[in-house]
Amino acid sequence: MPDNLCYAQSGGVTAVINTTAAAVIAAAAAEPAVGRVFAAKNGVLGVLHEELAQTWRESKTTLAALAETPGGAFGSCRVKLPALSDNPNIYRRLMAVFRAHKIRYFLYNGGNDSADTALKLSAAGKLHGWDLVCVGIPKTIDNDLSATDSCPGFGSAAKYIAVSIAETTLDLMSMARTSTKVFVLEVMGRNAGWLAAAAGLAAEEDGGALLILPPEAPFRRAHFAATLRRRVQKFGYAVVAVSEGARDGRGEFLAAAQSKDAFSHRQLGGVAPKIAEIAKELGYKSHWAVADYMQRAARHIASQTDSEHAAALGAAAVKLAVAGKNGMAPIIRRRAGAAYRGIYRWSVGAAPLESIANRERNLPAEYYEREHYRITPACRRYLAPLIRGEAHPKYGKNGLPAYARLKNILAKKKMPPWPE
Amino acid sequence: MPDNLCYAQSGGVTAVINTTAAAVIAAAAAEPAVGRVFAAKNGVLGVLHEELAQTWRESKTTLAALAETPGGAFGSCRVKLPALSDNPNIYRRLMAVFRAHKIRYFLYNGGNDSADTALKLSAAGKLHGWDLVCVGIPKTIDNDLSATDSCPGFGSAAKYIAVSIAETTLDLMSMARTSTKVFVLEVMGRNAGWLAAAAGLAAEEDGGALLILPPEAPFRRAHFAATLRRRVQKFGYAVVAVSEGARDGRGEFLAAAQSKDAFSHRQLGGVAPKIAEIAKELGYKSHWAVADYMQRAARHIASQTDSEHAAALGAAAVKLAVAGKNGMAPIIRRRAGAAYRGIYRWSVGAAPLESIANRERNLPAEYYEREHYRITPACRRYLAPLIRGEAHPKYGKNGLPAYARLKNILAKKKMPPWPE
Repeated sequence: MPDNLCYAQSGGVTAVINTTAAAVIAAAAAEPAVGRVFAAKNGVLGVLHEELAQTWRESKTTLAALAETPGGAFGSCRVKLPALSDNPNIYRRLMAVFRAHKIRYFLYNGGNDSADTALKLSAAGKLHGWDLVCVGIPKTIDNDLSATDSCPGFGSAAKYIAVSIAETTLDLMSMARTSTKVFVLEVMGRNAGWLAAAAGLAAEEDGGALLILPPEAPFRRAHFAATLRRRVQKFGYAVVAVSEGARDGRGEFLAAAQSKDAFSHRQLGGVAPKIAEIAKELGYKSHWAVADYMQRAARHIASQTDSEHAAALGAAAVKLAVAGKNGMAPIIRRRAGAAYRGIYRWSVGAAPLESIANRERNLPAEYYEREHYRITPACRRYLAPLIRGEAHPKYGKNGLPAYARLKNILAKKKMPPWPE
Repeated sequence: MPDNLCYAQSGGVTAVINTTAAAVIAAAAAEPAVGRVFAAKNGVLGVLHEELAQTWRESKTTLAALAETPGGAFGSCRVKLPALSDNPNIYRRLMAVFRAHKIRYFLYNGGNDSADTALKLSAAGKLHGWDLVCVGIPKTIDNDLSATDSCPGFGSAAKYIAVSIAETTLDLMSMARTSTKVFVLEVMGRNAGWLAAAAGLAAEEDGGALLILPPEAPFRRAHFAATLRRRVQKFGYAVVAVSEGARDGRGEFLAAAQSKDAFSHRQLGGVAPKIAEIAKELGYKSHWAVADYMQRAARHIASQTDSEHAAALGAAAVKLAVAGKNGMAPIIRRRAGAAYRGIYRWSVGAAPLESIANRERNLPAEYYEREHYRITPACRRYLAPLIRGEAHPKYGKNGLPAYARLKNILAKKKMPPWPE
């Protein structure tokens, strides 16, 4: 009997994390060295509590739809494991659950925190008597993982943002003569400005009427206000894409600025209304939107390139696992130089989880022009291929995408309950 | 030489107002009684200032793409004309511009305020010596026009909202175990809750984990908080769709509540953060989004039904104009009873502009269950067909929709400038 495999999702979900899940399930089914494929409920918590969904009990139709479904179909979690030496009991428990279900391969699909979890598990097996092969699979809409050229999930969120900026700009242009002159879209990115930068794909090379505010460039209020006024004077309107994590020179989040009044009431709201207020002070009617979860759940406008990346990493992770590559993760490699000729070629490589765990990759200085609030041509060359191609999901007759709802039938428990 | 036609766009734009524009241009070209088709820049302002775009100078490719392009390609305006007796000069001017360009037919594409403008123009012709035929064409994402069963623009915005709720609900479900438990989406609708109601199309008949807050039902904070808690307890998470115009029992907008602190600083932000705050007070991590212009510009997720309505009303308006139906507007009629069998059949009728101008149609009481914050089966039957069918725009190789950018070459002016 071949060994079993367990897949789990961790951290913020994306429009294509289930594409990776579906690819893992399909690749494992075609792999003679793998027996059953379990999926832990809510990431590593599902292992701890022995909540293991039996993926083989889902229909082929459901698994096909799963590849086109946003969110994390098995549940995700925001949980950081303690150091191995701090709480060996947790690791003993996890290995005991794996052993009970003969799970030799564990595939953990997440961002840099999740890579940290995977890294710890990759070391725990040897310590606790179970020869586990733990492989990470990168995903994050933030695109802030090092070691990989881009992160599955980012391209689709980037496409959502670029399309939304293109569309709202057309709306704004129509109304600017007698109504709204400034539109602000707040996008995700606490520390990294990749998603804000993606808005630049909807603008001309010179930035046009679009101003981008990533967290990496400290916000200079007077400079920004003057630039905003010049853009409105030139174009008749202006559009701002601002990262939720935009901050001033002292590192204070704009969203938190003036966040308390005289009674210490906390002010609500994100950074978009703060930017819109600057426009109002200049005398311009303004509107603002906050994309929040919509940008990472918008499978309906997913990037085909991103979807292919997500599937390829899922399949590659199974190969790495079966080859015994404990503590590794598949990554996206870009063929150097190709982008300069407008061609995008990529392949799948592998990197140690150490090179991903607990690291952040910010928008590099050479990708953003602070003075003009725009992305550079190099940034455009990097970003452009990631939003290419449409991966329309199937729609039902009701006009909604026919997203999968899994049965998630759990395997019979073989262990005592975990008390915590 | 046949008489010329002028088309113009007014009020808030939609994802399919240009679909109507393209249909007007095509229908007029096929109509022997119509000569040239002008499009006034920025609605009636373009007539006043004699800024008349020559639509025949756009390529066929551009006009085909126009039908798939959001925003108002000729510019729109928020301008209300004075009463005829208050300022006859304006009407004399408008008629003089029409006469100078031999424009016999004026088609005004807008909501209830725009219908008022069209109504005034339909009366002004006889008074000021130019036999103008003025026809209105309904459009609004708010769906608040009387006389028509539904309004072009609404179905696409409704589809955007239903799809976004479906997608963000999947996202929320994945994370609820250890992270966010409540997600709030703010949608447009100052007085009418049609767009909030559309969120219900993404939920089960019993409402499931979704709570809808339209402006028509006065907000009861304690009742809402208790219901929200019960939903989270039952499902593990809850989703709220709230109209920007949601208000309390005294008619005060929730978005404006507590809007001033001790220093009379205006608080920023919409109603979504206010609802999210209630969730936080219950101890639930919450997230919120504001769709704003995205919901009305999202041509990429337009409803095919809505797109067909928009085109049909454009073509019908040309027919009405040529038939001399001054002061009329084409409308959508639903074949009664058909919806009960899951079938949707519609036709185009006509209604006098008086029945549209300055009236608002709210969400009727029988479409919303206040106690459960959900739409009724009757509301679902009404809404469901309006989001059916996908009208994907063409995409460029860059991964963005290939939206049209018109040349908008203005006709040579024949009149002195308008001083105001």
